[in-house]
Amino acid sequence: MALNPSIAQPTSAPLDDRIAWAVDGLTVELPSWGFVNTGTRFRVFPQPGVPRTVFEKIDDAATVKRYTGIAGTVALHIPWDRVDDFASLAAYAADRGLLIGGINSNTFQDEDYMLGSLCHPSPAARAKAVAAIVECCEIAAEIGSRVVKVWLGDGTNYPGQDDLRWRRHRLVAGLREIYPHLPEGARLFLEYKLYEPAFYSTDVQDWGQALSVSRLVGDRAMVCVDIGHHAMGVNIEQIVAILLAEGRLGGFDLNDKKYGDDDLMLGSIDPYQLFRIAHELVNAMRDDGDPVAQRCARETVYMIDQCHNIEPKLPAMIRSVMNLQEAFAKALLVDREALVAAQAAGDVLEANRVLADAFATDVRPALARLRVERGLPADPFQAYLVSGEAEQRAAARTGGAAAGWG
Amino acid sequence: MALNPSIAQPTSAPLDDRIAWAVDGLTVELPSWGFVNTGTRFRVFPQPGVPRTVFEKIDDAATVKRYTGIAGTVALHIPWDRVDDFASLAAYAADRGLLIGGINSNTFQDEDYMLGSLCHPSPAARAKAVAAIVECCEIAAEIGSRVVKVWLGDGTNYPGQDDLRWRRHRLVAGLREIYPHLPEGARLFLEYKLYEPAFYSTDVQDWGQALSVSRLVGDRAMVCVDIGHHAMGVNIEQIVAILLAEGRLGGFDLNDKKYGDDDLMLGSIDPYQLFRIAHELVNAMRDDGDPVAQRCARETVYMIDQCHNIEPKLPAMIRSVMNLQEAFAKALLVDREALVAAQAAGDVLEANRVLADAFATDVRPALARLRVERGLPADPFQAYLVSGEAEQRAAARTGGAAAGWG
Amino acid sequence: MALNPSIAQPTSAPLDDRIAWAVDGLTVELPSWGFVNTGTRFRVFPQPGVPRTVFEKIDDAATVKRYTGIAGTVALHIPWDRVDDFASLAAYAADRGLLIGGINSNTFQDEDYMLGSLCHPSPAARAKAVAAIVECCEIAAEIGSRVVKVWLGDGTNYPGQDDLRWRRHRLVAGLREIYPHLPEGARLFLEYKLYEPAFYSTDVQDWGQALSVSRLVGDRAMVCVDIGHHAMGVNIEQIVAILLAEGRLGGFDLNDKKYGDDDLMLGSIDPYQLFRIAHELVNAMRDDGDPVAQRCARETVYMIDQCHNIEPKLPAMIRSVMNLQEAFAKALLVDREALVAAQAAGDVLEANRVLADAFATDVRPALARLRVERGLPADPFQAYLVSGEAEQRAAARTGGAAAGWG
Amino acid sequence: MALNPSIAQPTSAPLDDRIAWAVDGLTVELPSWGFVNTGTRFRVFPQPGVPRTVFEKIDDAATVKRYTGIAGTVALHIPWDRVDDFASLAAYAADRGLLIGGINSNTFQDEDYMLGSLCHPSPAARAKAVAAIVECCEIAAEIGSRVVKVWLGDGTNYPGQDDLRWRRHRLVAGLREIYPHLPEGARLFLEYKLYEPAFYSTDVQDWGQALSVSRLVGDRAMVCVDIGHHAMGVNIEQIVAILLAEGRLGGFDLNDKKYGDDDLMLGSIDPYQLFRIAHELVNAMRDDGDPVAQRCARETVYMIDQCHNIEPKLPAMIRSVMNLQEAFAKALLVDREALVAAQAAGDVLEANRVLADAFATDVRPALARLRVERGLPADPFQAYLVSGEAEQRAAARTGGAAAGWG
Repeated sequence: MALNPSIAQPTSAPLDDRIAWAVDGLTVELPSWGFVNTGTRFRVFPQPGVPRTVFEKIDDAATVKRYTGIAGTVALHIPWDRVDDFASLAAYAADRGLLIGGINSNTFQDEDYMLGSLCHPSPAARAKAVAAIVECCEIAAEIGSRVVKVWLGDGTNYPGQDDLRWRRHRLVAGLREIYPHLPEGARLFLEYKLYEPAFYSTDVQDWGQALSVSRLVGDRAMVCVDIGHHAMGVNIEQIVAILLAEGRLGGFDLNDKKYGDDDLMLGSIDPYQLFRIAHELVNAMRDDGDPVAQRCARETVYMIDQCHNIEPKLPAMIRSVMNLQEAFAKALLVDREALVAAQAAGDVLEANRVLADAFATDVRPALARLRVERGLPADPFQAYLVSGEAEQRAAARTGGAAAGWG
Repeated sequence: MALNPSIAQPTSAPLDDRIAWAVDGLTVELPSWGFVNTGTRFRVFPQPGVPRTVFEKIDDAATVKRYTGIAGTVALHIPWDRVDDFASLAAYAADRGLLIGGINSNTFQDEDYMLGSLCHPSPAARAKAVAAIVECCEIAAEIGSRVVKVWLGDGTNYPGQDDLRWRRHRLVAGLREIYPHLPEGARLFLEYKLYEPAFYSTDVQDWGQALSVSRLVGDRAMVCVDIGHHAMGVNIEQIVAILLAEGRLGGFDLNDKKYGDDDLMLGSIDPYQLFRIAHELVNAMRDDGDPVAQRCARETVYMIDQCHNIEPKLPAMIRSVMNLQEAFAKALLVDREALVAAQAAGDVLEANRVLADAFATDVRPALARLRVERGLPADPFQAYLVSGEAEQRAAARTGGAAAGWG
Repeated sequence: MALNPSIAQPTSAPLDDRIAWAVDGLTVELPSWGFVNTGTRFRVFPQPGVPRTVFEKIDDAATVKRYTGIAGTVALHIPWDRVDDFASLAAYAADRGLLIGGINSNTFQDEDYMLGSLCHPSPAARAKAVAAIVECCEIAAEIGSRVVKVWLGDGTNYPGQDDLRWRRHRLVAGLREIYPHLPEGARLFLEYKLYEPAFYSTDVQDWGQALSVSRLVGDRAMVCVDIGHHAMGVNIEQIVAILLAEGRLGGFDLNDKKYGDDDLMLGSIDPYQLFRIAHELVNAMRDDGDPVAQRCARETVYMIDQCHNIEPKLPAMIRSVMNLQEAFAKALLVDREALVAAQAAGDVLEANRVLADAFATDVRPALARLRVERGLPADPFQAYLVSGEAEQRAAARTGGAAAGWG
Repeated sequence: MALNPSIAQPTSAPLDDRIAWAVDGLTVELPSWGFVNTGTRFRVFPQPGVPRTVFEKIDDAATVKRYTGIAGTVALHIPWDRVDDFASLAAYAADRGLLIGGINSNTFQDEDYMLGSLCHPSPAARAKAVAAIVECCEIAAEIGSRVVKVWLGDGTNYPGQDDLRWRRHRLVAGLREIYPHLPEGARLFLEYKLYEPAFYSTDVQDWGQALSVSRLVGDRAMVCVDIGHHAMGVNIEQIVAILLAEGRLGGFDLNDKKYGDDDLMLGSIDPYQLFRIAHELVNAMRDDGDPVAQRCARETVYMIDQCHNIEPKLPAMIRSVMNLQEAFAKALLVDREALVAAQAAGDVLEANRVLADAFATDVRPALARLRVERGLPADPFQAYLVSGEAEQRAAARTGGAAAGWG
C-alpha cells in the first residue's frame, strides 16, 4: 500500500492540503449489522425502515457512502449475512461503489455456545466453533475479503466455573486450527473485550491477551481494538501505539462509551480521546523511522461498530463517519516539527499545547470545502436529513421482518 | 416491629444462639421474575422448566421457601404479573406459605418510554408513566403489599439529548403525583442505578439523587440499594450506614457483580463486601443509641434480584438465599464489645481483626444444625439438587410459552 | 448579584457579544497553594522560583491576574497561610487587584488527625478540628472572605476500623458546632472526595453525603465539587445540575484527571466534559424558570485546584484559566433555542448536534479579540512565556525555603 | 526446584496434610522498605521504633520470620539499602535465618528522573537509569540474589508530552542493555502499574506491556504482578493464569486495595480474590499436564509490598503473611477431582460451589496446629502483640533518623 502523499504535508502547507488525507485517503468500513434493530437487554425499540435483507443493509451502507464519500467498504457478519451466492453479493455491493470488508464470525448466539465456543469445555462445541470460523475464511476467499474478524463471547460467569488457564490453551489451539484456512494474504483479527456477555472472566479480555495469543497463532494474526472494550481509565492511545510498534494492530471497532460497552456514536462522549488515537495513527503513517509501525498504520482498518438504541441509524452512522474524519483532520494539523522539538526538550507545557491546539482548531469549514470540491455535500449529515431519503426508505420497507441482531 | 430477641445475643452466648436470627428473624423476598428466561443483549439461552404463568412463578418461590425456610415473600412486577384477580393471587401465594412483597413498576419496555417515563420530555409519556405506577399502588392496596418499588430506565444516551436539570424537576413532580396513591402505611422505594439502559445520564443515578428526591416526595419515600448499581470502587456499606442514619433505607435488590450490573448470584464475587453490608444492618438493629437507624434497619426489605443467564434458576436462587444467611450469621458473630472498644481506642489492627475474624468463621455447620432443628434440610442447595424436583418441574412444564423478561 | 447582561445574548447576536461574559463576567479564584512545590508520595520535584511566603504566593496570583484579567480572587489555606495581620494581607492583595476568596481549612496534616478530624473517634481530636475550622471562620470575618471551605481527609483504611454510621453522626455534630461561627452572609463549602488519603472509607465521599450533611447543618452550607474527586464514569455535569436544582452548589475545585485525584491542568484530559459542566452553569444563569438554580449559578465560585508535579506552575495556571474561559465561551455559543426545541421534540441527533457544534467551534480568535480590546494580551500563555518574568521570578527568589505543601 | 510433596495431597488425605504446604512449602519475601515510615502525598505520620538502618530493617524482617516461620527472604531497595559491604549484609541476614531476595531498583526519585528514566527523552537520563539498574545486577551477583526487580515511575502527565511509541522503543532498548548484566541464572522482573506517579500514561502500564517487552528482552525477563496496580474490574487471577501458561510469571508484589494503589494489608479488602489467585498457583503447581506453568508456579516469588500509613508496621506485616498463608491453605483444600469433573460437565453451579466451599472453610485452627507442631506460636499476630517486643523495639530505637521512603 503506497503512502498517500497528503499524509506527509509539512506544517507550512495550506491547511486544506494538510487535511486532505481525511477526505482522499481515509476509508471507513461500515458494519452490515449497524443498520438493523438493536437495543439493550431491557428492550429493543424498533425503528422504521430498517433493512430486511443483507441487500438492503448494503443499500444503507451505499447511502452513507454517497453522502460521505469515504465509507468505502462494508463488513459482513456470518451467519446473519449468509447468502447462497457470495459472488453476487459482492457484485451487488460493487455496483453501489462498495467493497466487502471483514467477515465477522458469530459463535455466541447458538445454543451450543452457552458456555463458550473456542474455549468451551466440550470438544464438540469447540469443533463446531472452529468450523464456523473456518466457514468465514472460506467466505472471505469467495467474496474477496482480506480480513476475518473473530470476536468471541467466551468466558465464565462464576469463579471456578472453568479452568482459566486451560481455556486459554483451548483458545490458542482453536485459532491455530483455523489459521491455515485464511485466504492467502488475508489477516485474522482477534478482538478483545473486558466483559459482557461473560461477567466473571472473558477469554480474550484485553489487548495483552489478544497480542500474546496472536503471536502463537501466526504472522497474519492481528489485534482488533474496540474503543468501548476497555476497563475504566485505560489509556487506549497508548495501546494503539504499542500495537503499532509490535506491528500487530489490525483494525478498530469504532464507537464511544461512558460506562460499559455502550456502543454510542463515535466521538460522542470523548472526542479528545478519539483525536489522540488518530494522532497515533497519523504519527505512525508518517515516516518517523519505525517502518514496522508505518506499514501497520497504513493497513489499519477503521470499522464503525455501534448499537443505535434510540437514534435513527443512517444519520447516526453518517455523523460517526464525519466525527472520525474530523478527528483525523485535526490530527493531520498537529505541528509535528514543533511537537517533536518540545518533546525532545522536555518542554511539557509546549508539547501539550501543540497537541491541544490542533484539537481546538475547527476543521469543519475546511472539510466542507474539500467535500464540495469532490462533488460531495458540504455537510453530509444535514444533507441526508433534508433529502427525504429517510422517509422514502421507511415507506419502501414496509412488510417483511426487519432485521435484528441475531 | 418488635426486635427479634436473638439479634441482641451477647458475645458470650452459645454460637448457635448468636446466629439464630439468620434462621428465625431474617426474611428474604424473591422476585417473581427471577425464575424466568433471562439473558444479555447478545442472547437469552432458554432453560427447561421455567414458569409460564405468574402462578408457576409463585410455585417456584414456594419451592425455595420449602427448602430454605426464610424466603417468605415474593415480589411482583407489573405488567408482567398482572392478573384479573389479585386477591386470588395473594391467596394462592398464602396457601404456599408466601406473602406478597413489593409491587415493582415497569416503565421501561413500552414503546412510549424510549426516551424516558417520569422524566420524558413529553407530558403525555409522563402521564402514562404516572398512571402505570399509580396502578401499582392500587394493586399494592388490593393485594396487601406494603411496598411499591420504582426503578426507572430513564436517562439519556447523548450529551445535549435532554436538559439534565429539568429531567430532575419532572422526576420530582411525577413522584409527588404518585405518592398520595400509596396505600396507607405503605412505602415507596426509589431505586438508583449508575447506567443501563441509558448510557450517558441516568435520572436516578445514585443514592444521593434517590435520597434527595425522596425527601422532596414524602416521609414514606425510601431508597432501594441494588448492590450491582454502583460505580466501581464505591463503598456500598457506607451508603447503607448513611441511609440508616437518615432513616431512609427501604430495602435491597441483592445480587453480585464484577463489572457492570452483572446480576450474578448474591455473594458469588465479593462475599466479604456482603458480610460488611450485613454488619451495618446488624449493628443498627442492635440498640446503639440511634433509634432512627434501628427502626429503619428492622424494616429493611431483602429482595434477591438476579439474572441467571447460564445457570439453573431454582438452585441458584437457593444458593443466594443461603449466601445471605451466611453473611448475616457471620455478622451476628462479630464480637461487638471488642470491636467498639478497639474503635474507641483507635486500635486499627485490632478493630479490623475483630471484623475479619467473624468473617473467617465457618458458620455452615451451625446453620445446618439450626435448620435441622426447624425441620429444614441441613443443606437446602444439595437437598434440592438430589430431590428430583428439577426434573419434575421440567417435565411438567412442557408446552406453553416460557415466561421471559418482558 | 445582578445578572451579567452578556449571559443572556440571543443566538442571533454577534459571536463576540455572545461570549463576552467569559471575559467580563467570569471570575476565577486561584489557590495560594497552587504556586508552591508539590508532588506525589513518590517524590516532590522542586521548581525554581516558587514562593517562600504567602506574600509571594499573592504576587504569583497577581501575575496570573495581570495576564488573564479574570483571575480576580485568591484562596488561602490555614495554617499554611496564617499571618499575624490578615488585614494587611488583604490590603497587600487589594493593591495587586485581588480579593481574598475562600478560607480553606486543614485538618489532615497534624499528628492528632491521623485517624480523622471531625469524625475522629476521640472527642479531643474532634474538638481540636472544630477549633481549627472556627479559626478559619474568624479569619474569614477579619479578612472579608465570603467562603469557608472544608475538605476533610477523614476516613478509614480498613473495614471495622471505625463505625461508619457514627462517624457520620460526628461529622454532622462537628459542622453544626462550627456553623454559627460563619461570618454573617458567608457560606460554608463542604467538599467531597471518593478516596485518598483514606483508602477504605472517606467520611465525605460523594456529593450525596455532602448534600445530605449540608441540609442538616444550615442554609448556607453548600457543596463544593472537585472535578477529580469522583468514581470512574460518574456523570459530573448531572451532579452539577442536581446541586443547582437544590440550590446547594457552592463552588468548584477545578482540575482534570484520568485516574485518581490526579490534579492535572483543567481541561487537559477531557475538555468536552469541562464544556458540558460550563453548559449547565450557563443554562442555569439564563432565565429558564428555575430561580433557585439561577441564583445558585450566579454565585458559584470557580477555583482552580491543581498539583503541578512536573510543569512550571505559573504558565500552567494561566493555561487552566484560559481553558476554563474557552469552555465557558463555547457554552455561551450553544444555540439555546434550537437545543430546547430539539429536546422538546425528542430529536436525539439534533439536540446532540447543537451541543457538539458549539464545542467544535474555535473560540480562541474571538477571545483574543476581546482580550485585546480590554488591554490584555491576546494569548496570555505565550505572552507570559516570552515576557522574561519566569526568569526574573526565579532569580529573585533564591535563598529562603521554598514553600511546599504543608 | 523439587515439588513439595504436600502440594499434591489427594482430597481424601487428612486436612492438616492437605494444607501443610502453606506452612512447610510457602516462602514469603519481606520488603526492607515495609518497616519504615510511609504515607500519602498529604502526610507521612511517623511511628515509634521504625528502623534507622538497613540492619534494623533486617532485624524487623527477622522478627516476622521468628513469629511466622515462612517469611524467609528479604528484598532490598537500591539506593535506599546501599551498603559498602553487601557480603556482610547477607551474612547479617543469614545469621537471622534470612536469605536476600530481590534487588529492587529505584529510578524515580532522583532529580534527573522527573520526566522518566529508561524512557526519558534525554539519552543522558536514560544512560543514568541503565547504570542504576546495572548496579542492582552487580549487587545481586555480589549478595547472591536471584532476582533483579524493575519498577519504573516512567510516564507522562499530559497528552503530547512525549511520544508514546518511542518511549516504548526506548524501554526495550534500555532493558536489552541491562539484561546481559544479570547474574547467571538470575531473573529480571518487570513490574507494571496502571498509573501513579505518572497520571496520563505509564510506560509499563499493564501486564500485556510487561509481557511483550519481556519477550523482546530475554528468556529470563519475567512479569511481576502487584495486586494493586490494575484498572478497576480487571480479573487478576486470569492474568496470573495467562502468565503461568506463558511461563512468564516471575513474582508478586502483595497488598490489597479498594481504589488506586492503596497498598493496604494483603487480603484486607478482598480476601476471596486473594484466594482465587492462590488457587491458580496451586492448580499450576500440581501436575495438570502443563509443565511450563508448573515450573513457573514453583519458582514464583511472593513478596509483600505494603504502605502502612496508620497501622503499626510489624504486626501488620505478620497479619499479611498469615492472610497469604490462609489463602493458600484454602486453595489447597479445593476438591480438585470434583472441580475438574464439574468443569468438564459444564455444571456451573457445582464447579462454583466446590471453589466457594474451600474458601468458606475456616483453616485457622488447622494452621494453628501445624504451627505449634513446628515450634511456632499458634497465632503469630497475637503472640507478637503480647510479647512486649513492640515496646522494646520503640525504646531501643530512639535517636537517629527513622528511615523513610526515599
